[in-house]
Amino acid sequence: MAYKSDIEIAREAQKKPIQEIGAKIGIQSADLLPYGHDKAKVSQSFINSVQGRPDGKLILVTAINPTPAGEGKTTTTVGLGDGLNRIGKKAMVCIREASLGPNFGMKGGAAGGGYAQIVPMEEMNLHFTGDFHAITSAHSLLSAMIDNHIYWGNELDIDLRRVVWRRVVDMNDRALRQITASLGGVANGFPREAGFDITVASEVMAILCLAKDLKDLQNRLGDMIVAYRRDRSPVFCRDIKADGAMTVLLKDAMQPNIVQTLENNPAFVHGGPFANIAHGCNSVIATTTALKLTDYVVTEAGFGADLGAEKFMNIKCRKAGISPSVVVCVATVRAMKMNGGVAKADLGTENVDAVKAGCPNLGRHIENLKSFGVPVVVAINHFVTDTDAEVQAVKDFVAEQGAEAVLSRHWELGSEGSADLATKVAELADAGTADFAPIYPDEMSLADKIQTIAKKIYRADGAVMDQKILDQLKLWEDQGYGSLPVCMAKTQYSFSTDPTLRGAPTGFNVPVREVRLSAGAGFVVAVCGEIMTMPGLPRVPSAESIHLNEDGQIEGLF
Amino acid sequence: MAYKSDIEIAREAQKKPIQEIGAKIGIQSADLLPYGHDKAKVSQSFINSVQGRPDGKLILVTAINPTPAGEGKTTTTVGLGDGLNRIGKKAMVCIREASLGPNFGMKGGAAGGGYAQIVPMEEMNLHFTGDFHAITSAHSLLSAMIDNHIYWGNELDIDLRRVVWRRVVDMNDRALRQITASLGGVANGFPREAGFDITVASEVMAILCLAKDLKDLQNRLGDMIVAYRRDRSPVFCRDIKADGAMTVLLKDAMQPNIVQTLENNPAFVHGGPFANIAHGCNSVIATTTALKLTDYVVTEAGFGADLGAEKFMNIKCRKAGISPSVVVCVATVRAMKMNGGVAKADLGTENVDAVKAGCPNLGRHIENLKSFGVPVVVAINHFVTDTDAEVQAVKDFVAEQGAEAVLSRHWELGSEGSADLATKVAELADAGTADFAPIYPDEMSLADKIQTIAKKIYRADGAVMDQKILDQLKLWEDQGYGSLPVCMAKTQYSFSTDPTLRGAPTGFNVPVREVRLSAGAGFVVAVCGEIMTMPGLPRVPSAESIHLNEDGQIEGLF
Repeated sequence: MAYKSDIEIAREAQKKPIQEIGAKIGIQSADLLPYGHDKAKVSQSFINSVQGRPDGKLILVTAINPTPAGEGKTTTTVGLGDGLNRIGKKAMVCIREASLGPNFGMKGGAAGGGYAQIVPMEEMNLHFTGDFHAITSAHSLLSAMIDNHIYWGNELDIDLRRVVWRRVVDMNDRALRQITASLGGVANGFPREAGFDITVASEVMAILCLAKDLKDLQNRLGDMIVAYRRDRSPVFCRDIKADGAMTVLLKDAMQPNIVQTLENNPAFVHGGPFANIAHGCNSVIATTTALKLTDYVVTEAGFGADLGAEKFMNIKCRKAGISPSVVVCVATVRAMKMNGGVAKADLGTENVDAVKAGCPNLGRHIENLKSFGVPVVVAINHFVTDTDAEVQAVKDFVAEQGAEAVLSRHWELGSEGSADLATKVAELADAGTADFAPIYPDEMSLADKIQTIAKKIYRADGAVMDQKILDQLKLWEDQGYGSLPVCMAKTQYSFSTDPTLRGAPTGFNVPVREVRLSAGAGFVVAVCGEIMTMPGLPRVPSAESIHLNEDGQIEGLF
Repeated sequence: MAYKSDIEIAREAQKKPIQEIGAKIGIQSADLLPYGHDKAKVSQSFINSVQGRPDGKLILVTAINPTPAGEGKTTTTVGLGDGLNRIGKKAMVCIREASLGPNFGMKGGAAGGGYAQIVPMEEMNLHFTGDFHAITSAHSLLSAMIDNHIYWGNELDIDLRRVVWRRVVDMNDRALRQITASLGGVANGFPREAGFDITVASEVMAILCLAKDLKDLQNRLGDMIVAYRRDRSPVFCRDIKADGAMTVLLKDAMQPNIVQTLENNPAFVHGGPFANIAHGCNSVIATTTALKLTDYVVTEAGFGADLGAEKFMNIKCRKAGISPSVVVCVATVRAMKMNGGVAKADLGTENVDAVKAGCPNLGRHIENLKSFGVPVVVAINHFVTDTDAEVQAVKDFVAEQGAEAVLSRHWELGSEGSADLATKVAELADAGTADFAPIYPDEMSLADKIQTIAKKIYRADGAVMDQKILDQLKLWEDQGYGSLPVCMAKTQYSFSTDPTLRGAPTGFNVPVREVRLSAGAGFVVAVCGEIMTMPGLPRVPSAESIHLNEDGQIEGLF
C-alpha cells in the first residue's frame, strides 16, 4: 500500500474559514484578526474577557530521547487533540511556530504528519503571521540603538568589549557568526567584535513566550542585560530606552495564532524559542488562553523529556502558574530498536529483543516524569512495519513501570486511530491524581539547581563546574538573580552530554562549560557541550530546489 | 483655530471593513486575503481575471524640488483621489509602502496628512502586511547562499573580493555599513569584507516593484549579478540557484495591498524602492491592476520631478507599457518662498516678491514634464498662512508657462477641498491630449542617456564621466545591457548636484562618481554625489519615546 506524503495530505485538506474554527471555541469574528482565510490572531480584548473562567486540563506531550528513526511528538500532539474531540471532549492543541531559516537548509517540517497535521503547512513554514519577523525587528532595533548610543558619546559608559547583545537574522548564515562591525571610519562608529544568532535564539523570543501580557513583556525586555561596563556592572535594555519601541514592534506578535488541524479542530501555534539555550515551549499566553477556552489543552515540549519536559515543568509551569494533569511520553517501536542497537537500515525487520533492550531509555523518562507528581501515559506512535510482538514488548515494559502504553494510529487514520489514546488520557486527567511540583525550589542555590537536574533527571554522578563558573553563579545570586530557574543546554540525543550514549547511561558527569544570564526571560543558562546558535547551510541546501510550480504551488519545501 | 494632528485625525477615522472597500472596485471577499480587518492583499487569480479589461487613465503626482517647508505630494495624491471620487468619478490611489527602520530615528510619516490620509497609519509604518520582511528574507537567503557556496568549495570560482551582493536589514544600523564577515575559523567560512544596506535599497525591492508577475519576478531575480570572478565575468543569482526559493519567499509580497483613505476610497499601497539608487515608485503590479479596476488611478513618484517623475517616465512607464494622461506638479506658496530665499522661520509672513522669485524652480519642472508629451496641472497645496496675493502670484506664473494652477484645500477639508483640482485633472485626462514618450530611446548609448537627462532635465552643461566610467558603460553595452534605462542617484534638493542650489540653476556640470548595474531590476545607476544606502540613528532616536499607552495605543511614533 502506498502512503501519501505529508504535503499531499495537507494539500487535500478541507480547511474551514478560520472564523468557523474560532467560533468552535467561542471566539467571534470581531476578535479574530485574520491573516488570509485560514490563519488569525486572537485579540487582546478577547483574551482579557476570558480571564475569569476556570482552567481546562493541561496535557503535556513529550518523548524519549530523539533518534534518527523519528518519534512523532508533534504528530501525536495533533493526533491526541483530534482524538479528544472525536470522543466528544472539547479540546485544542498548542504548539510552537517553525523557524524560517532552517527550511532553506534541510527540507521544512510539517506541523505533525500523515493524518495528524496542522494546516496551512506551507505558510507555517514561511512567514506565517510575521511573529518571527517582528522578533527579528525588535531585536535588531535594540542592536542598532546600542551601537548608536556608543556612537553618540557612550554616556552609559559601555565597555566596547563587553557588549553581550548579539544581532539576529532568521536565516542559516554562518558567515555572520563572528564579524567585526563599525568598520570604515568615524561615520560608522567604533569598530568592535560582534556576531549574529538565528532569531529563535533571541532572548526576545524566550521573553515573548514567557510574558503574561504586554506590560510584562515590556518589563522583561527592559530587564535584559545588553552590555557591561569596565567595572562589570550591567547595562540594561531599559538604560538604552529600547523597551517601549520593542514592545510596540511586538504588539501583534504577542497575540496567539489560531489555525486548524486536518479535522478542523482549533490549534494555537505561537512562539518558538530554542530548546537548548531557551526553554523550547510555545507561548504562555497561548497556553493559558487555550486553558480558558477548552476542557483539554494538548501541548508539547522540545526535544526529549530530559530537556523539554524538565524545562516545561521547572520553567514554564513554575513561571506561568500552570501544571499538567497528564504527561504523554511518545515512543516508537523503531526508536526503541535503535536504542537497542539496531541500525537505521534494519529497522523494518522484527526484532523483539532489540525493542526490549532499548526500553530502559523510556523507563527512565517515565520515572523522571512521575517525579514531578504527574501521571504518565506512553503513546506508541504506530509505524506500518511494527509487529504485534514488538508493540506488546513495549506495553509489557511500560506496565512494569507502573504506567500504561497505548498504541495510537493517528498518522495513518487521524482521530479514528487516536481515540483509544484520547480515552485513556482523558480518564487520567479527569481522575485528578496529578499533584504537580517542580523538582527544585526557587530558593535553592543556582549551582544546586544544576546539580539537582544533573542527578535526578540525567542520573549523572554530578555536574562539574569550575571555580569561575561557581563564582559567576554566586555573583548573580548576590545581584538578586538567585531565585531564577536554570535552563540546561545539552545534547538532546542522550541523558548524558555524549550524543552517542543512548539508552539509560550511568556513571558519567555533566561538565558545565559556561553559564549565561537571561535576565529578561528569567533563567540562567547552563551550557553543557557545544551549542550552535547560528546554524549553517549544507553543501546542497534545500533552497536550491525550492520553487513555485506552474500551478503556483510550492515545490521542494517539504 | 487649532488644527488636529495627523495622528488624531487618523485615530478618528471611520474605517469600513476592507471587504466593503474591495467591493467598491469589484474585488469580492474570496479574492481578498485579509490582514486584520482593514488591510488585505489582492489575490493573483483576481488579477489574472481582469487582464482583458481596458485601462483607466493614469495620473502622476510629482512636485517641485523638496524644501524643509514640505510640499505634501502624498497628501495631494490622496486628496486628489478622494476629490475624483467626490465629483462622481471612479478613482483610486496607488502609493508606496513606508520603510520600518527610519521610523525609529525620526518620527514616522503619515500616508498623506490632515484630512487626506490613508489608514491604518500605525500599521503602515510598522510591519504592515510583511512585504518588506519578505524582501529582507529573500535578500538574506541569497546572501547566505553565496557565502555557503564559497564555504563548500566555491565551484563557481567567485572572487572573494568581488562579491557585490551586500546584506540588508530594515533598520538604521550604521554599525553594519562595513563589516568583516566569516571570522572565527574554518567552520565560519572565508573572512571577507561585507556590509549591510537598508532593505528598501535592495535590488530585490526594485525588482518586486518592476516585475509583471511571479514568473517575471523569478527571471529578474535570476538575472541579478551577485559577484565577479577574477576574470571579471559575472556570477548571477541564477548560478547560486537562489531565484526559485526567493520567489517562494516573495509570493505573497508580490500581491498588492489594499487599504482605504479617510473617506473610505480604495488605495493600493505596495512596494517602496529607494528613489536614488532605484526608481522610487510603487509596484507595477499595483498600478497596472488599479488601471483595470477604476477609470482614474492617481499615483506618485519619489522626490521632486527632476528625479522622481523622470524615472517614473523613463523607467517605470517604459518598462510597464503604461503612460500618464496628466501630470500634477505639487507646489506650495511656502516652498516657493523658500526657493525665493526666505528662511523657514519667516514663512508665515506674506511675501509676494519672494513667491515670484521662487517660481522658476516650478517653471522648469513644468517645462520638463511637458517634454514627455503629457499635460501638466499645478496643484497649490494650500497652507493656512497663504495669502490670496501669494496664491495669485503662483497662478499667474503658471499661466505664463502655458499651464494652469489650481488651489487645493484637501489637507483642511478632504475631498471638499480638492474637488476643483479633481475637476481640472479629470477634464485634462478625458481630453486625451497626452502623447507620451520617454525622452531617450532604448538604443541610445548609456553615456548619452546620462547626458540627455543631465542636459534636458537638469539643464546642466553636461554630465562629467571619467574614462573608467565610460569604459565600464561600454563593457556593459558589449555584454548586452546597452538598452537599459539609466537611474540617476543625485540630491533631491536641487536640479544640480549641490543641494544648496535652489531655484533653476544653470552653468553647472553633473559629475558621475560611479556607475552600478542592477541587471535584475533592469537599469544602470549613475551615482552623482554621496548616496547613503544605510542610514544611521540620530543622537536621540524617536525609538526612545515610542511606547504603548495605557489604552494600548502607540505613542511617539508620529
